[in-house]
Amino acid sequence: MTLGRGDTGGRGRREVKPLQIQDVGELGLLERLRQFCPSRLIGDDAAVLAVPPDKRLVVTTDVLVDGVHFSDRTTTSEDVGWRATAANLSDLAAMGADPMAITVGLSLPGTVPVEWVAGLYRGMGQCLQRYGGQIAGGDLCRAPTISVAITAFGSVDAAQALYRSGAKPGQAIVATGRHGSSRAGLEVLLNPESAANVSALARKRWVSAHQRPHPRFDAINCLRRLLSTGASIAAMDTSDGLANGIVQLCQMSGVGAKVERSQLPIDPTLIAWRGEEEALDWALYGGEDFELLLCLPPAIALEFVQQLGGDAAVVGATIQAPEILLTDSKDASWVQPLTLDRGFQHF
Amino acid sequence: MTLGRGDTGGRGRREVKPLQIQDVGELGLLERLRQFCPSRLIGDDAAVLAVPPDKRLVVTTDVLVDGVHFSDRTTTSEDVGWRATAANLSDLAAMGADPMAITVGLSLPGTVPVEWVAGLYRGMGQCLQRYGGQIAGGDLCRAPTISVAITAFGSVDAAQALYRSGAKPGQAIVATGRHGSSRAGLEVLLNPESAANVSALARKRWVSAHQRPHPRFDAINCLRRLLSTGASIAAMDTSDGLANGIVQLCQMSGVGAKVERSQLPIDPTLIAWRGEEEALDWALYGGEDFELLLCLPPAIALEFVQQLGGDAAVVGATIQAPEILLTDSKDASWVQPLTLDRGFQHF
Repeated sequence: MTLGRGDTGGRGRREVKPLQIQDVGELGLLERLRQFCPSRLIGDDAAVLAVPPDKRLVVTTDVLVDGVHFSDRTTTSEDVGWRATAANLSDLAAMGADPMAITVGLSLPGTVPVEWVAGLYRGMGQCLQRYGGQIAGGDLCRAPTISVAITAFGSVDAAQALYRSGAKPGQAIVATGRHGSSRAGLEVLLNPESAANVSALARKRWVSAHQRPHPRFDAINCLRRLLSTGASIAAMDTSDGLANGIVQLCQMSGVGAKVERSQLPIDPTLIAWRGEEEALDWALYGGEDFELLLCLPPAIALEFVQQLGGDAAVVGATIQAPEILLTDSKDASWVQPLTLDRGFQHF
Repeated sequence: MTLGRGDTGGRGRREVKPLQIQDVGELGLLERLRQFCPSRLIGDDAAVLAVPPDKRLVVTTDVLVDGVHFSDRTTTSEDVGWRATAANLSDLAAMGADPMAITVGLSLPGTVPVEWVAGLYRGMGQCLQRYGGQIAGGDLCRAPTISVAITAFGSVDAAQALYRSGAKPGQAIVATGRHGSSRAGLEVLLNPESAANVSALARKRWVSAHQRPHPRFDAINCLRRLLSTGASIAAMDTSDGLANGIVQLCQMSGVGAKVERSQLPIDPTLIAWRGEEEALDWALYGGEDFELLLCLPPAIALEFVQQLGGDAAVVGATIQAPEILLTDSKDASWVQPLTLDRGFQHF
């Protein structure tokens, strides 16, 4: 496989014009991408997949657009591939499902380097290799902007599917890990000089949270071991921010919530860097941390948090609707209602 | 639901600025689109679907881009919705599968009228209502260009799945209907004056073939009634043109083909309008007719063509590889090799 140097062409070396898609044509590009897909799944009008017996099919779609969700300034195409795949797999994890496959709808200009597309597929492949699933085909077409539409398929026992609407008042609200780190990673990438005093380790941790998020299938597996059937549970991922997650779970379940700000898992180095207020803002509204947010019976929640370890934490409790409040145990007069309005909106 | 006048705003009337997506925001748009999706399938991170017992899952993705696959000059958003859905369902039909659901990944500028998006979803809904399946969610994001990525899910008995690789030498090649009509419809829309002498009925027929293609589930049902298990069959749809279909079936099956040009189902009015050569060219390379192309044992092929009726026809026969030739029974010296190179290529 002959690839151009792509977008990794270095300074100080003589520039070699990378091989572009329009140089190899649609058929030439498809030929190169074939290696990333199992041959039994491509070459037909559609892919045929076996859903395990007695399981339900779980499907989800995410679209990533150049300049909106990623840019060459902050993300290599391998990272775009990983992140787009991880975002979809995270939705499967949030439903309690195991990954089976993805399809890829890719639109892009003919001037994109072939190596950029190969990198994209490598990144998708790496994520699938780590978490399970295969590339089951897709579609490729010319467009003025790069856009990557991924649909992921998973499977779940009907009785083990997790929904946003499963919460009851009096449950514990659990976050599986730190929030705000992806937003911090973006800041490091966009304004590296602003993080000059932050340790290299923390910067690397945040950039990795931004570029290579991990769907929390480990949390789902841990939860399954703890669950007696019939326990009422609500779950979703925090791709649109922690505040969005809390509000969505509450609204879909018809409950309220009291969340304690000191319990929110935020990287202490991030608080030291940006101050308490901005770190809180990034945790609540930054988005793209791809952790899970769950409402569980309190006893199960404590055991879950202990067994899962890391930065998983009980961050609050569900109450009777309608209030959804962030409180501060250190300052009884401080209270902040959580809303959907502050999160990232596309339009 | 308050909608702007959208792209149907008429001449001679006072122009009212249509309500745009950026006027209602992402949440406002999602609110309006909710009516098109069954409520049990949306509102979570992913949709949960039941695949019928003992069936395989069939998945396919198509991306349509504004200015490449459609434009306001030729296609209303309802037609875009119908066509994008029909294109995906046609891939399911080509695999012998029944439709279950679609997901929709929609990227678009904030200046698109809300009514345009509502029309898109109406068109998708109309096609699904006709052929089966539901909208099982999707994703919505801002982008400089409109792009519609649809993934369709279907189900099929493992033993009844149709593949491109199933052809054997000595089989009949069957096309389920006319080719070139979609290309003719596009011409009528782009250059209406060129078709001034064509009957209104024919123009309407071609425009409809272009804007509202029909996936041939009827042909699959007819085929199932005729099939003894174990018959070797190859199938695909002709979305990329008849020539592309013939070559793909042959290459995937390791056979050759002799196709007789006089047997190709082409609208006689189209031949009268454009002449034999151009009509043939449109039939072979125009694409988007969304008929099925099948390789069948000859006896089954004849019965299939009779029972299916309409313009279904045996157009040739498979032979030993490698030649894939178009011949003319009226002129023994005329022969044309069929290739993939002439079809529409994106880059």
